[in-house]
Amino acid sequence: VNITELIVRKRDGGALTTDEVHQLIAAYVDGQTPDYQIAALLMAIYFNGLDSGELAAWTSAMLHSGDTLDTSSIGAPKIDKHSTGGVGDKVSIPLVPMVASCGVAVPMISGRGLGHTGGTLDKLESIPGFRVRLDPEEFISLLESHGMVMGGQSDTLVPADRMLYALRDVTGTVPSIPLISSSILSKKLSEDIDGLVLDVKVGRGAFMQNIDDARHLAETMVGIAKAHPTAAVALLTRMDEPLGREVGNANEMAESLRMLRGEETPPDLEEITYRLGEAMLVLGGVASDRNAARSRLEETVSTGKALEAFAAVIEAQGGDPRVTEDLSLLPQPLQTAELVAPTSGWITRCDAHRVGIAGVRLGAGRARKEDDVDHRVGITILAKEGEEVTQGQPLAKVGWADEDRLSAAMDILREAWVISDEPPTPQPLIIEEIR
Amino acid sequence: VNITELIVRKRDGGALTTDEVHQLIAAYVDGQTPDYQIAALLMAIYFNGLDSGELAAWTSAMLHSGDTLDTSSIGAPKIDKHSTGGVGDKVSIPLVPMVASCGVAVPMISGRGLGHTGGTLDKLESIPGFRVRLDPEEFISLLESHGMVMGGQSDTLVPADRMLYALRDVTGTVPSIPLISSSILSKKLSEDIDGLVLDVKVGRGAFMQNIDDARHLAETMVGIAKAHPTAAVALLTRMDEPLGREVGNANEMAESLRMLRGEETPPDLEEITYRLGEAMLVLGGVASDRNAARSRLEETVSTGKALEAFAAVIEAQGGDPRVTEDLSLLPQPLQTAELVAPTSGWITRCDAHRVGIAGVRLGAGRARKEDDVDHRVGITILAKEGEEVTQGQPLAKVGWADEDRLSAAMDILREAWVISDEPPTPQPLIIEEIR
Repeated sequence: VNITELIVRKRDGGALTTDEVHQLIAAYVDGQTPDYQIAALLMAIYFNGLDSGELAAWTSAMLHSGDTLDTSSIGAPKIDKHSTGGVGDKVSIPLVPMVASCGVAVPMISGRGLGHTGGTLDKLESIPGFRVRLDPEEFISLLESHGMVMGGQSDTLVPADRMLYALRDVTGTVPSIPLISSSILSKKLSEDIDGLVLDVKVGRGAFMQNIDDARHLAETMVGIAKAHPTAAVALLTRMDEPLGREVGNANEMAESLRMLRGEETPPDLEEITYRLGEAMLVLGGVASDRNAARSRLEETVSTGKALEAFAAVIEAQGGDPRVTEDLSLLPQPLQTAELVAPTSGWITRCDAHRVGIAGVRLGAGRARKEDDVDHRVGITILAKEGEEVTQGQPLAKVGWADEDRLSAAMDILREAWVISDEPPTPQPLIIEEIR
Repeated sequence: VNITELIVRKRDGGALTTDEVHQLIAAYVDGQTPDYQIAALLMAIYFNGLDSGELAAWTSAMLHSGDTLDTSSIGAPKIDKHSTGGVGDKVSIPLVPMVASCGVAVPMISGRGLGHTGGTLDKLESIPGFRVRLDPEEFISLLESHGMVMGGQSDTLVPADRMLYALRDVTGTVPSIPLISSSILSKKLSEDIDGLVLDVKVGRGAFMQNIDDARHLAETMVGIAKAHPTAAVALLTRMDEPLGREVGNANEMAESLRMLRGEETPPDLEEITYRLGEAMLVLGGVASDRNAARSRLEETVSTGKALEAFAAVIEAQGGDPRVTEDLSLLPQPLQTAELVAPTSGWITRCDAHRVGIAGVRLGAGRARKEDDVDHRVGITILAKEGEEVTQGQPLAKVGWADEDRLSAAMDILREAWVISDEPPTPQPLIIEEIR
């Protein structure tokens, strides 16, 4: 296969054959094709896209670039969930034990936070001792014994994605819908699942800023899954303000645990968690419809079953299960500071992107991949969009550990809220469902 | 300078500043910026172009990536000519001694043939002993003593172009007007010239297949030269059939020498050579207008002055000057074969691209950069467009040295001619002039 010819064809709007795509990805992973040719091809794909046949081939070639999991020993339906990333999006943490408690196995491979968005692995690691590095044997064994497992990407799974992502990151080719879609789907399909529920975020705090792009991404991912074939559903959900009231690692874990303990939960966090859980149960065939699924999910919380299941998997993954009973065992900030409302009025904006960046400045997230995160620090949102505040009332409580970082975070956080004389028009949280 | 940010900006249709372009090219030449980032940037440039400010900066940064010639010791005006490449285009060979004999110094750096197009260096090397590898000191010294010099690119001149061209070649980013223009102009401007005449070829045997693209290329190159500032004129000329009657190395040299000896010259070769020469003399200020220039150029041939000047520079560059008197001293093919007209009629097409490829198969050109050329072999066109032939009359004479290569060449050559019942509508050879 002549790589230059393939680049030229893609540059000129033509399509690559399935064989060509497989040879190309294999040659890249084997080190036969240099980065510079792939970089040029990725930029041509940025401009000209990939058609559905190329996308299926590209995803499949990535998927088969390394090992895949073998979940054939698991009798239960295996369903995973993926979110395209947002601020305060801790949904996976309560969702996985709730769904697993209903008899759907969840082999969840998650990522770390980068830029303004957080990552499930970082949040899990706020539990003292929790291990997210699991080899494939342990991963499957945990899935067998607990019906759920939450770990990081193993080095042997989808090496093509790791190589391509690293290259995209430094060549301006990250925001390409076919490349994003094939990256996500190759990783999720490597889990050997029966179905996938996608939470495609759109808005100020999401990678997709407008609904058309988000819909295109959702349709592309559902299309790839179906071509595999794997059942899939996507929800387009609004990510203009942070989800729930906590942003950070230990504090998002605490908010998740409070939800599993049946304590009062912010309505937006609750709505998305249940909607995704309902879709997973229906897709897994353990509930006939959304209402039946909802009842079963609620029961896992009210009976304490989901919390108990989570405690068991925490212990199995090396973490301290007592955090489920005693939230003070989670890392705590050194001190807290408050941001207060400069005027009275209605909150018409609580900008998720700014809050996310403030979190990074504080140390809760990463500006660069190689940065460490500080699990202790975070932001508690005390006034969300649509709420009324009076001048001097706290908008947020900031848990901090370093004065310079606090100051840098506050500078950005201050700009996150907009207070107006009129309440905002309520916006739907779940915009549409794509199957 | 953050290269990823520059790639993203160019990808999104923004412009790079002059400083950014200079830093980018310098970092690439220094090995600080990896090929894969430049490859992605080149593909973004392929799609989004470079504006006139970026083009001036890009060319200047390339030009200053290495040494430049210093022609300040030359009293005469220094004018060069560049052709974008065609089949049978040996114009530089008669042109340089004719123009130099009129008092315009020509510091010509040429290239080698690749694909269907020939290169002046290969043609010059058909003269036994002729050296095209000249270091900058010798290049200037020859220009001082002979008013002309014809050599290859020195390693120290415009290293950025060598690096970028090698990368473009394997990343599908060759046919980009801003990248082609800046590549050509950086090399030509490194010769420290006062003016440049460009022959931009358009048609079947040219890189540019349509007049709009060719005009855009010509305007872009003239614009870069003027911004430098260096005077420039471009002619758009038709390259549908081979120029003149000879295609190959020794036989193109022979055709050039016959022209310098005042023997009968194919009208198309004569027209383009004189038109370019006239422009060079006017640009150099040694003739007040085209008519005056034409007379002076004709005189260099009729008096034998141009031939004598060429013989002197051949000798100075290590070649055997007796070839100017005895064409049989040029390499000769082992045997010749004929291609005859399958029917009677008018030649409505003699496809330059096919003839060029037939030349490559024969061994006169290169399919890949690393191939050697056989100076002996070539094709003599015996029936050009607009000429009438009878069945069985020879269309071409092929000088060959290897039977398999002859056979491969003949298979393509046979398809080059179209013979029709009606004569073709004559097309202008020189389409327009751009200044």
